[in-house]
Amino acid sequence: MSSEFGKNMRISIFGESHGEVIGAVIDGLPAGEEINEQELLAFMSKRAPGQANTTPRKEADIPKFVSGVYNGKTTGSPICIIIENTDMRSPDYEKLSAIPRPGHADFTAHIKYSGYADMRGGGHFSGRLTAPICAAGGIALQILKRCGIFVNAHITEIGGVSGDEMYEVVKNLSGDSVGGVIECIAAGIPPGIGGGMFGLESKMSYALFGIPGVKGVEFGSGFEGSRKKGSENNDAFCVENGNIVTKTNNHGGLLGGITTGMPLVFRIALKPTPSIALEQDSVNLQTLESVKLKIEGRHDPCIAIRAVPVAEAVCALVLLDEMVKK
Amino acid sequence: MSSEFGKNMRISIFGESHGEVIGAVIDGLPAGEEINEQELLAFMSKRAPGQANTTPRKEADIPKFVSGVYNGKTTGSPICIIIENTDMRSPDYEKLSAIPRPGHADFTAHIKYSGYADMRGGGHFSGRLTAPICAAGGIALQILKRCGIFVNAHITEIGGVSGDEMYEVVKNLSGDSVGGVIECIAAGIPPGIGGGMFGLESKMSYALFGIPGVKGVEFGSGFEGSRKKGSENNDAFCVENGNIVTKTNNHGGLLGGITTGMPLVFRIALKPTPSIALEQDSVNLQTLESVKLKIEGRHDPCIAIRAVPVAEAVCALVLLDEMVKK
Amino acid sequence: MSSEFGKNMRISIFGESHGEVIGAVIDGLPAGEEINEQELLAFMSKRAPGQANTTPRKEADIPKFVSGVYNGKTTGSPICIIIENTDMRSPDYEKLSAIPRPGHADFTAHIKYSGYADMRGGGHFSGRLTAPICAAGGIALQILKRCGIFVNAHITEIGGVSGDEMYEVVKNLSGDSVGGVIECIAAGIPPGIGGGMFGLESKMSYALFGIPGVKGVEFGSGFEGSRKKGSENNDAFCVENGNIVTKTNNHGGLLGGITTGMPLVFRIALKPTPSIALEQDSVNLQTLESVKLKIEGRHDPCIAIRAVPVAEAVCALVLLDEMVKK
Amino acid sequence: MSSEFGKNMRISIFGESHGEVIGAVIDGLPAGEEINEQELLAFMSKRAPGQANTTPRKEADIPKFVSGVYNGKTTGSPICIIIENTDMRSPDYEKLSAIPRPGHADFTAHIKYSGYADMRGGGHFSGRLTAPICAAGGIALQILKRCGIFVNAHITEIGGVSGDEMYEVVKNLSGDSVGGVIECIAAGIPPGIGGGMFGLESKMSYALFGIPGVKGVEFGSGFEGSRKKGSENNDAFCVENGNIVTKTNNHGGLLGGITTGMPLVFRIALKPTPSIALEQDSVNLQTLESVKLKIEGRHDPCIAIRAVPVAEAVCALVLLDEMVKK
Repeated sequence: MSSEFGKNMRISIFGESHGEVIGAVIDGLPAGEEINEQELLAFMSKRAPGQANTTPRKEADIPKFVSGVYNGKTTGSPICIIIENTDMRSPDYEKLSAIPRPGHADFTAHIKYSGYADMRGGGHFSGRLTAPICAAGGIALQILKRCGIFVNAHITEIGGVSGDEMYEVVKNLSGDSVGGVIECIAAGIPPGIGGGMFGLESKMSYALFGIPGVKGVEFGSGFEGSRKKGSENNDAFCVENGNIVTKTNNHGGLLGGITTGMPLVFRIALKPTPSIALEQDSVNLQTLESVKLKIEGRHDPCIAIRAVPVAEAVCALVLLDEMVKK
Repeated sequence: MSSEFGKNMRISIFGESHGEVIGAVIDGLPAGEEINEQELLAFMSKRAPGQANTTPRKEADIPKFVSGVYNGKTTGSPICIIIENTDMRSPDYEKLSAIPRPGHADFTAHIKYSGYADMRGGGHFSGRLTAPICAAGGIALQILKRCGIFVNAHITEIGGVSGDEMYEVVKNLSGDSVGGVIECIAAGIPPGIGGGMFGLESKMSYALFGIPGVKGVEFGSGFEGSRKKGSENNDAFCVENGNIVTKTNNHGGLLGGITTGMPLVFRIALKPTPSIALEQDSVNLQTLESVKLKIEGRHDPCIAIRAVPVAEAVCALVLLDEMVKK
Repeated sequence: MSSEFGKNMRISIFGESHGEVIGAVIDGLPAGEEINEQELLAFMSKRAPGQANTTPRKEADIPKFVSGVYNGKTTGSPICIIIENTDMRSPDYEKLSAIPRPGHADFTAHIKYSGYADMRGGGHFSGRLTAPICAAGGIALQILKRCGIFVNAHITEIGGVSGDEMYEVVKNLSGDSVGGVIECIAAGIPPGIGGGMFGLESKMSYALFGIPGVKGVEFGSGFEGSRKKGSENNDAFCVENGNIVTKTNNHGGLLGGITTGMPLVFRIALKPTPSIALEQDSVNLQTLESVKLKIEGRHDPCIAIRAVPVAEAVCALVLLDEMVKK
Repeated sequence: MSSEFGKNMRISIFGESHGEVIGAVIDGLPAGEEINEQELLAFMSKRAPGQANTTPRKEADIPKFVSGVYNGKTTGSPICIIIENTDMRSPDYEKLSAIPRPGHADFTAHIKYSGYADMRGGGHFSGRLTAPICAAGGIALQILKRCGIFVNAHITEIGGVSGDEMYEVVKNLSGDSVGGVIECIAAGIPPGIGGGMFGLESKMSYALFGIPGVKGVEFGSGFEGSRKKGSENNDAFCVENGNIVTKTNNHGGLLGGITTGMPLVFRIALKPTPSIALEQDSVNLQTLESVKLKIEGRHDPCIAIRAVPVAEAVCALVLLDEMVKK
């Protein structure tokens, strides 16, 4: 297992979808940082279920700081955040336990953990585990904002289309699901953050691929840049207000794994929600018999929608980890 | 700095493009593994310069094992690999030192290392540093092969086109450069490798983004999968020769960060070589004056071509790191 | 901050003495391991306050597994253990906040965390934080026992004396405190565990010095061995029941950082409890005025006594971490 | 294997006693630090063999910086240091290969590395591997000195005696060997360095136990402090020149794993050199027959003597690692 990331600041995620609680421990956050709880709840509500185009499962998702915060400020010692699981309906899933759902971790977790994993609702592999990431990242976003760094993500594609049409795609799925692409931009980062052969792209992608459903990560012009000429993709240097900047930003704010001072830009590809209401083929793990599987219950038609704040949270945590060191 | 990756097996890369030597230390490779030097040299020659469509710079690139190998077998103690830099022509670069080349780490390294970085030929950020990765990865490939695991990468796109036309693109660049996409497939991996919230995609992408020029990483159907429906992208389970497999492989061999036993498939996007013979705009770091820059010297028109064995090497090292633990 | 240890198994400790809860996250424990709760509670009660010769503070110290355990067995995902703080009497400490107690972390935490640390009752530096270590270690002890490995610690010295007289020392302190030495022995470890230049002594001492009050760690003959001749301290090899063993065990079961198969033996030196009822000299952090300080409240006369199970817990966690890798 | 230590600065040690070279990679040293080579050689000569009371084996021990240093200054990229092995006399050892030497890692390395370890002269477990630690630490000492931090170690005991008599003990060994104790003091460290539950004692002891032959580590009053009363061992706070200091230094400069600003003081216990000229009992690993073993060749009568600069080197590296983060 390795449900941790970060170096100077370690973020350790725990919990299962249908367990009692989920949460995170953040070890290494600086002392004396104020936590604005209202702002944090507002941020977390962006991820919460029950919104338009998302699963109707409702969770209060109130993060409780059980350590590391005193009089509303961080103390410098590890912060444990706990979020209760209040709306579990295990029976929806229980019957599936012997039949792995296509696109889910059911099969691989069964092999890896010899049948002992608690896979109700996806267990530790559930998208629900992104709630503590948002709680931790929400704090990081507040700290970064005070340093003049602003992180914003948004959906750029759903089912291959962009703009208002994206939401039409989501409405016409009839039990099917669809994937999407999120773009995240962080502005205000000073140049010189990151570095080493395994620089900021390495650290960022490590954390981003921990978001369930992420199957691709690209920085700047990314895959599209690989289709260009050098003369098109290189960003010329120039001077603006006494600072060296680039005229374009195909490099996405990173050269040699180190920030240039231009906005950091990355995109993540999220696969279609694997839980769909349509019939699928699977196999009984015990009998090896072929099985027709129909997944009932409540599911997001497009996990990319609720992953938007998660991308912001992860981005903020990785940036803060790198800047804490400085 | 952080020029290391791996957990159970740590790979530490050192050296600069125009320094005396470059190399790697591998700490944690199992004892008793035979190294076939002929096979290793043959593998490394795939990355070597001087091939068709690559830079004419010639380096013997003979890896020398100065520790950790005895009587042709690994001893279990750290292996230090050293490769001499034999064909350095610093004057080509020396004059550029105050003028950062677009698309290179010159500017960011200057900021981060306060002007002390040895940036001749790209310094520690040069693609030359992938030679020790290939030497280390070449050993890993031999060990994996003995376990029945085979890793193969190939170019799938250059400048957005595929097939034989790709090489036409490279021939008609007239001093410009072009990007490309590499696909890497690893077959024979048992199910159950990886895991944790930050699973094999996290570890693999961390290492892959260390290859200079990589700006995107995707697994399985990746970004294309994000444009699909769940019913199209989910891979149905079935039984084949008594094993549970999937009918398709959009998941690229990974579910929940754990191998399924299907081939591991990933693609990396490489940007166009930033060094081009065409005139570019830059800025003098000392005077902040605008400068027209024309890069002379020898350069690969498409770094993706020589990165193919590097992708195989990185893939093998990450897989072995994960399997050493088992 | 760095309140974590372990490599294959990460143990992350959180909480403050007078916060709501204290706890630990264990990431990497194997799946399918049964937890005998009765045995765990019995083990933890060895550390609990309120025993003979210890502080009268009473805490139920019931560890609650809020993740990673399902149907009484580990699931392979991170285990979060939570222990409530039920018997806090902050007023005893509150008034001291500007006056650092000699021998405590009050002064250094004040400097390091710029006055934001929650130091009520010692905060995150309190010996109370060893309760979650015992909970985590108690599970490790159960797993090791099933592998035939038994860990036992005991007091060997209090105030420089040994045997029954030790307890006389504790009874006659009149408000003062006293230090002690704990010896820990782990039997049944197979040879070949550990290794690398920074072997098992390195990993074990790293974790042991995390126990508040530990100021010395020695393996085998330790400091006493440094006063001997090689001919006295070397342990001759011989064969016993077909196995290579040593006739004596001055090496404490470790040669070259790797287990020999002989019992692992180490000792830890615990300083006298810094909280004493006698008047001490200190300084007001704000005014820099000299202050006479008298610490009231409940304190262990000898922290070594309650640290005995903590030493066993740490030993078990480090061993299991090393063996999980195998 | 794990021949690395450090967090922000990683030090990776490689090589075998009778291999071609030994060396170290330091990843994370700040850029722009001047290396005074004369001073470094003078420091390293303190460890070199061939001095009074040490083995007559002669090695030039000239560290060669093959990367990470340019124009006499650190570049910020990883520094690889290489030291040639020039005076190897393998035949002295070759015949011993099947017969483990008491007190050496021969037996455990044989088990752990399945007979593949290159154990000539102790292989990777040899005290010779402390030469690259001294080279790396020598640089750290120079950097710390420029920050006003001075590290000094000295022998305090040989064979249990101190003062001039110590050297009499060494002279009258007649083929036997003897252990010793080294004390290391680092002055000028600002308060507030270290911290976390696993603080500076944890990190320091981790690295110190990597020095071959170290079997005990204690800070401040250490084991002797465990024999005292709290009223004797606590260090009262007072004000001196406007700074809060302590009147005594039983805490060895560390409270709660964080520096107080008082000198850091630790002692390490080194066992007697295991190689002695006297006859010892061992066992043939292949035949399991009892064997009388007499070790010939050149050996230090007391490894503690040459370990003095190694203690300084390790201390400096751990301190710098912790301060780089700040």
